[in-house]
Amino acid sequence: MIIVMRKDAQASEVEEVVARVKELGYTPHLSVGEERTIIGVIGDERPLAVEPLELMPGVERLVPILQPFKLASRDFKRENTVVTVGGVEIGGQRVAVIAGPCAVESREQLFETAWAIKEAGASILRAGAFKPRTSPYSFQGLGVKGLELLAEVREEVGLPVVTEVISPGDVELVSRYVDVLQIGARNMQNFSLLQEAGRSRHPVLLKRGMMSTVQELLMSAEYILSNSNYRVVLCERGIRTFEPSTRNTLDITAVPVIKGLSHLPVIVDPSHATGKWDLVGSVSRAAVAAGADGLIIEVHPHPERALSDGAQSLKPAVFAQLMRELKAVAEAVGRSL
Amino acid sequence: MIIVMRKDAQASEVEEVVARVKELGYTPHLSVGEERTIIGVIGDERPLAVEPLELMPGVERLVPILQPFKLASRDFKRENTVVTVGGVEIGGQRVAVIAGPCAVESREQLFETAWAIKEAGASILRAGAFKPRTSPYSFQGLGVKGLELLAEVREEVGLPVVTEVISPGDVELVSRYVDVLQIGARNMQNFSLLQEAGRSRHPVLLKRGMMSTVQELLMSAEYILSNSNYRVVLCERGIRTFEPSTRNTLDITAVPVIKGLSHLPVIVDPSHATGKWDLVGSVSRAAVAAGADGLIIEVHPHPERALSDGAQSLKPAVFAQLMRELKAVAEAVGRSL
Amino acid sequence: MIIVMRKDAQASEVEEVVARVKELGYTPHLSVGEERTIIGVIGDERPLAVEPLELMPGVERLVPILQPFKLASRDFKRENTVVTVGGVEIGGQRVAVIAGPCAVESREQLFETAWAIKEAGASILRAGAFKPRTSPYSFQGLGVKGLELLAEVREEVGLPVVTEVISPGDVELVSRYVDVLQIGARNMQNFSLLQEAGRSRHPVLLKRGMMSTVQELLMSAEYILSNSNYRVVLCERGIRTFEPSTRNTLDITAVPVIKGLSHLPVIVDPSHATGKWDLVGSVSRAAVAAGADGLIIEVHPHPERALSDGAQSLKPAVFAQLMRELKAVAEAVGRSL
Amino acid sequence: MIIVMRKDAQASEVEEVVARVKELGYTPHLSVGEERTIIGVIGDERPLAVEPLELMPGVERLVPILQPFKLASRDFKRENTVVTVGGVEIGGQRVAVIAGPCAVESREQLFETAWAIKEAGASILRAGAFKPRTSPYSFQGLGVKGLELLAEVREEVGLPVVTEVISPGDVELVSRYVDVLQIGARNMQNFSLLQEAGRSRHPVLLKRGMMSTVQELLMSAEYILSNSNYRVVLCERGIRTFEPSTRNTLDITAVPVIKGLSHLPVIVDPSHATGKWDLVGSVSRAAVAAGADGLIIEVHPHPERALSDGAQSLKPAVFAQLMRELKAVAEAVGRSL
Repeated sequence: MIIVMRKDAQASEVEEVVARVKELGYTPHLSVGEERTIIGVIGDERPLAVEPLELMPGVERLVPILQPFKLASRDFKRENTVVTVGGVEIGGQRVAVIAGPCAVESREQLFETAWAIKEAGASILRAGAFKPRTSPYSFQGLGVKGLELLAEVREEVGLPVVTEVISPGDVELVSRYVDVLQIGARNMQNFSLLQEAGRSRHPVLLKRGMMSTVQELLMSAEYILSNSNYRVVLCERGIRTFEPSTRNTLDITAVPVIKGLSHLPVIVDPSHATGKWDLVGSVSRAAVAAGADGLIIEVHPHPERALSDGAQSLKPAVFAQLMRELKAVAEAVGRSL
Repeated sequence: MIIVMRKDAQASEVEEVVARVKELGYTPHLSVGEERTIIGVIGDERPLAVEPLELMPGVERLVPILQPFKLASRDFKRENTVVTVGGVEIGGQRVAVIAGPCAVESREQLFETAWAIKEAGASILRAGAFKPRTSPYSFQGLGVKGLELLAEVREEVGLPVVTEVISPGDVELVSRYVDVLQIGARNMQNFSLLQEAGRSRHPVLLKRGMMSTVQELLMSAEYILSNSNYRVVLCERGIRTFEPSTRNTLDITAVPVIKGLSHLPVIVDPSHATGKWDLVGSVSRAAVAAGADGLIIEVHPHPERALSDGAQSLKPAVFAQLMRELKAVAEAVGRSL
Repeated sequence: MIIVMRKDAQASEVEEVVARVKELGYTPHLSVGEERTIIGVIGDERPLAVEPLELMPGVERLVPILQPFKLASRDFKRENTVVTVGGVEIGGQRVAVIAGPCAVESREQLFETAWAIKEAGASILRAGAFKPRTSPYSFQGLGVKGLELLAEVREEVGLPVVTEVISPGDVELVSRYVDVLQIGARNMQNFSLLQEAGRSRHPVLLKRGMMSTVQELLMSAEYILSNSNYRVVLCERGIRTFEPSTRNTLDITAVPVIKGLSHLPVIVDPSHATGKWDLVGSVSRAAVAAGADGLIIEVHPHPERALSDGAQSLKPAVFAQLMRELKAVAEAVGRSL
Repeated sequence: MIIVMRKDAQASEVEEVVARVKELGYTPHLSVGEERTIIGVIGDERPLAVEPLELMPGVERLVPILQPFKLASRDFKRENTVVTVGGVEIGGQRVAVIAGPCAVESREQLFETAWAIKEAGASILRAGAFKPRTSPYSFQGLGVKGLELLAEVREEVGLPVVTEVISPGDVELVSRYVDVLQIGARNMQNFSLLQEAGRSRHPVLLKRGMMSTVQELLMSAEYILSNSNYRVVLCERGIRTFEPSTRNTLDITAVPVIKGLSHLPVIVDPSHATGKWDLVGSVSRAAVAAGADGLIIEVHPHPERALSDGAQSLKPAVFAQLMRELKAVAEAVGRSL
């Protein structure tokens, strides 16, 4: 950490800051410049974040040097983490495709979708049993009934299943039925939920909040990792900007940025990022070309009758066609699908 | 709701949309224009939000006409709601000031602050027992021990107390110790928590998410109201923008915007909005002048030793001086403090 | 356009709005609903944008139905526009790559780069003679001397040249030396400049402002088109968001969004979008996979000595390697490069 | 400036950076930490911004310590600058109110407004002769005819006049007719225009771009100041965010932030910030309470017939009432109006 002193800081003020830094167990390193004196603080600065040193007389501001996350960083672990889910690798050479409906609506809808995506080459099924909805008047999911259907389809169709958990109290329950716990964008900083997911032994699919920086996403991953659950998959799903033509703005550059900072696998959700099914193909191809380790795509046999997110769901035939296109793009960048 | 058809929509496609609207129990109203045909849908459109009508052939897009919230709207209730907390009114003629430390750190710190803000004229005490922190390595609050101290200070100093609840499972526990449940910005769309708070009989202080629209804030309020808890106070606390010089960007205009759309009281949090104690005064005066029903301000007897948010906390003497200034501004806009 | 009346609008107020709509030469279309009366306005609504109908008593708000641009829209022209620049097509089957240094710094630097990018397969040279810089103390470009060097390199190396024009008074001058006029992001709404570029007979490369919507970009294109210059190439170069890890946030979805709304070609600038050379490759591959008609990439023989944008410039060898990768991606999506 | 080396930087890489810093005429200051080595660079770092030191092997990133502006900073000039315009002070004890129509539409409209705002207590007239409009089909202003009317009204009514200039070529022309040159939000980074305004001897009202940080606003002011025109007034007029309920989001905190960083006066434009006349009062009161040195408010005798910005214009009677309210707020914060 660097402590920048005000232009008019007194010598006594500089001395007091230096003394305080020593008192906290760090080595101060003074640079007296023409316009500013700065004090370098040598040592692991993370515990220092707690100290409001910027309030000491004469201090102008603090400049952190290290990233605040540790276990999620490439500094901590250089090689890529591969998360294995029911035999499917996420983060390896092959691009993993997760697909399925927004919500479990009925046995028929779920099975029809599961068989269709399996045939098209997807390797994991997604479907929500608990739905976090902006409006209290919208469909909130089938709950436990939905989980039971997921366990059934998992068994019969033979695909691992990911589903969202929205309350810390449900982590254990949901873990009994599915393979991967999803933490949705709106819950990325629901720290009680993160901690509970960290205590679980299930892989966690952690979506970036629409209001969150990459650094904050990695800090939320740190909550899970620091509870000794190392199987975390990150997901870029669009951030909120001023542009109204899509539901969110996909931050495609986050893919290489995260892969530079962290060893964890990164997938992309083109359905929520765009909110429109006819943009999903273009954005999915872009994600694979950018280096994403996987995709999570909404597919519904009858989008026009879907109880949620119909507008952004692909029909099975459109999805199957997209899988063929994605295969070509994956190969062009040296991967398979 | 208005359904806008594509320029090249076939007559048969228009007919099918009209038929579907009737099937759903609504009255369609056709306007054939030069460039577009549009179909007005007469009736309460809220249940329609579920229907992905935009997927029907020939449809270009849907334009909602009504606000999606109902109980929170001025259409539903014209006169201002006044929420009474331990004898203190929020939303009435008098501007209510809530003050206190970010977190309960110790009995001494809590009592010292409580007496100081009471003497300065604040009417409600704030302090966190459970702290949602971006980093798992930061101070997470004293938990139940903090709640016990809050109950004690409430009794002795005689101020109602507001504290944050971060997990649905804690709502009942927290309700036993304090007067107002706070739902923080990061949990504004934690729907499990909103529902649990709705089932409680305690007033709820609901903070706007840092990347949530005013409409979404009112939808989250609707979750609480629709569970029959009508005592909701809204709080503007800054939104996330590209401007780096402050922690968040206070949306001062949200105050009159919300008061136009809703009957619920609105307060402002200048401490989190700015993140810097020396900006709190200016922004607090602005909030009162803009018509806010109250303020929630962080005060700490020794900000330089605070375990969280020290940089944005006022010392008691600075707070007391600010209270005098705010009194003058309140009177200039026809209110008291 | 739809005029939404307030819930409590009087019958006389509705009548007055209807009368005013007729007076303006439009046909009103009344729909009386349970909660709101709405008035559809039939006809080309663009001239109506001028009328502040929302100020008439009883009016709640106006909802535009048509896009405000005309000549730039697919409604106006269905087939893709191909802009030809010195024999190079932008918007056709082949993906066009524009490359070169941020600024013309010297004859040696310019020629070295031009030969290198030509050999690597780029088809147009970019380099700035007039540099719009945030700081008055930064290098502002070589001006006319730079233009002369551009004309020279164009002749000798045999590549068409694009350069930025920053003042309406310079449009004619710049046109004498180069093939394409670039209007930079900061000037996207410099309407004097747009009009002057519209009066020129040169193709225009129009960059999206960093805080402009797609609709505003198309409105700025409309300024050029409506002055009878139909050779406009649009460029997505990143928008400003809250994410600090990159210079801007590339809006990759803007590529298919623009191609849906407009017939004009769209290229992507990965250098300015990211600000970091090691992110350029990933983002370039994504742009081609998403369907961009071209790329504009900064290349400098010695980035560490560049007078501007060194951090985001590729060395020639890195660029040549990227061209090979892009070729594979272009072919995977059915195009060539 | 601080140069942060990578964790795995070689000793030889550190040495090369140190050598380069010396070569550039600066004194390097080495701090070897556990996780990172950092190199402090002593001296005026502004010329260093040009050097892409981050490209040297082993360098992780650069951290600037000083603000990039100089003449605009409080470091350069401690006491407030007061800009005098035709006898009216901006930046002094009295809050200055600039008012008038968006555009000059006719002699009658202009004179009627000018007399009305003068009577209500405004001290400067605003009105546009050249209008930068998003659409080429919107009213673009009366041009020179408008300037002539402004000169006339200035003479007869006796109010100084501010009007916008949108092209460098018009600076001299406009200066002949009015007292203050306004540079609009869309032109805040039109550097040709800034330089031309800097060469003029007229005061400049510089509006913050809707996509610009406070630091960039001050850099744009630096363009004017460094051309020896020291009479610059800054204007906060709302920034672009994701919130759709207002045209822009007024950054009220920018007022104290700018006053902390700079000696220049700061005024607020509540009309463009909100886009809605019924929000102007609340936001104006907030601006004065926050410490703004003035306001610029749109007033039109017949907003419902205005050729531009009717929706955000106050009627004269509403403006007169607001002036009385603002007087009370100004006095509450120790100023007059």
